Amino acid sequence: MTVVGNLTDDPELRFTPSGAAVAKFRVASTPRTFDKQSSEWRDGEPLFLTCNVWRDAAEHVAESLKRGTRVIVQGRLRQRSYETREGEKRTVFELEVDEIGPSLRYATVAVKRMTRGTGANNAAASPAGQGDDPWSTPAASAATGGGSFGDEPPF
Amino acid sequence: MTVVGNLTDDPELRFTPSGAAVAKFRVASTPRTFDKQSSEWRDGEPLFLTCNVWRDAAEHVAESLKRGTRVIVQGRLRQRSYETREGEKRTVFELEVDEIGPSLRYATVAVKRMTRGTGANNAAASPAGQGDDPWSTPAASAATGGGSFGDEPPF
Amino acid sequence: MTVVGNLTDDPELRFTPSGAAVAKFRVASTPRTFDKQSSEWRDGEPLFLTCNVWRDAAEHVAESLKRGTRVIVQGRLRQRSYETREGEKRTVFELEVDEIGPSLRYATVAVKRMTRGTGANNAAASPAGQGDDPWSTPAASAATGGGSFGDEPPF
Amino acid sequence: MTVVGNLTDDPELRFTPSGAAVAKFRVASTPRTFDKQSSEWRDGEPLFLTCNVWRDAAEHVAESLKRGTRVIVQGRLRQRSYETREGEKRTVFELEVDEIGPSLRYATVAVKRMTRGTGANNAAASPAGQGDDPWSTPAASAATGGGSFGDEPPF
Repeated sequence: MTVVGNLTDDPELRFTPSGAAVAKFRVASTPRTFDKQSSEWRDGEPLFLTCNVWRDAAEHVAESLKRGTRVIVQGRLRQRSYETREGEKRTVFELEVDEIGPSLRYATVAVKRMTRGTGANNAAASPAGQGDDPWSTPAASAATGGGSFGDEPPF
Repeated sequence: MTVVGNLTDDPELRFTPSGAAVAKFRVASTPRTFDKQSSEWRDGEPLFLTCNVWRDAAEHVAESLKRGTRVIVQGRLRQRSYETREGEKRTVFELEVDEIGPSLRYATVAVKRMTRGTGANNAAASPAGQGDDPWSTPAASAATGGGSFGDEPPF
Repeated sequence: MTVVGNLTDDPELRFTPSGAAVAKFRVASTPRTFDKQSSEWRDGEPLFLTCNVWRDAAEHVAESLKRGTRVIVQGRLRQRSYETREGEKRTVFELEVDEIGPSLRYATVAVKRMTRGTGANNAAASPAGQGDDPWSTPAASAATGGGSFGDEPPF
Repeated sequence: MTVVGNLTDDPELRFTPSGAAVAKFRVASTPRTFDKQSSEWRDGEPLFLTCNVWRDAAEHVAESLKRGTRVIVQGRLRQRSYETREGEKRTVFELEVDEIGPSLRYATVAVKRMTRGTGANNAAASPAGQGDDPWSTPAASAATGGGSFGDEPPF
């Protein structure tokens, strides 16, 4: 799926124990719908989507984007379940980002090309094993099953 | 549809007689496919797609992107037919761009926000009437029907 | 966005007070990812996505699809917030369906064309006003704000 | 990309020398655009896109769909170049289909599940080697380079 919207906050950059960078951010996307009765375009309900981007691209995101930047994001919708302390099951939806960039609709940019990594696909792809989650708490990573987090969502 | 690839040339900026900016550029997108026999990822045949972007976004594109820049482009595939001098019918496929931005996979960017236009949708949308085509030749715009161009594709 | 997957249950058909049909169903989509270490494709974590489809298409879905059917769904991701009895805020993601059909990957179909409605777009589009939610409980529809539901998600 | 539209003709089914089925068909997709001046929705210029689908899905398509059926098609845009007898280079765009099904917007369907093949991905995926093109003429398959076809496009 592809989402266009604005960052709700500055991206947050973390590193997994094995050293892989990952950036997390949230995109607010407001669809415009056409109201037949008033014959006007209206802003629909905004969609807030948490996004994860990995490795080199994560560092580039953290360096380049900030709260309010309009972005185009392409990725795969993913679902993650966890349990609250009270034992309630919760589910969050997130976007695993394949490609992201600032939109040129309302902005210009100066692009600075970075040295390309060894593998063509090593930039944004998530690690094969999702084991080393930089957002998981020690308690969570010790848990069995689908992961058991504290009262708060893990991020 | 969404396409990720590299610009094959610097974008070309033109203006319609009524003053609307439009930028044209071509994106080369190389899919990676997995070869089961060799168990390796291979570059597939590249797709070359001509893209049009309108108004403010057109000027931002011309100012920000150049040959080789990796971009994410979202838009609608469109088909345009024309006739050669010999009377042969030709068809070209193009992408009418809704949103475009440089990819952060191999690059960082410095974003400069521009003053927002009056209408929220006035940046990249194509004009309601496609009549004033800045790429059409005088001969073509005088033609009836779908447009009659010279021997060469009109751009 | 476009999702391909299998229905987890038979679709559920309801009608709004104003008589509009709406069908709700859930799609389980399992991405296949390539594990470089073992050089094998593996099933990723499944995505479960609740989908809503409106009007004529809703009735066609209820009549044509059932638990297990593999479908292709195109629509717009949407987010809905509600409060539990305890006052906790919850958010669910759903897909507002534009187009849906059974996949021909593992099945054949016999298509029966129905009489076309008056408006070309009146089949699957959601109503301009989302007010008459057929899944809302009386208590919920009486609530102010974003809707206040019971302890359980509203569907 | 995902395309919704109507088949312009019955699908055409062929087999490669190695026995793989492939179905070819063309989809006409007419976008609806909103004309601000008249405040009305209008049909845009139709897009005609040739689509290829492989293996089991090809046979299911040939058996299930016909001229006029409205379909949802998901796949990857691909470009193929060939030379005319006069030595002119031509390019055609086609969609390599991943998933296809009839739309339920104006129709109901009876789904008949077929025995599932051995591999989960063996239905619609194109063969790793594109060598055995069932639409290529003997002259073309003997040609070197990108393929050299007769005066007519190869299909």
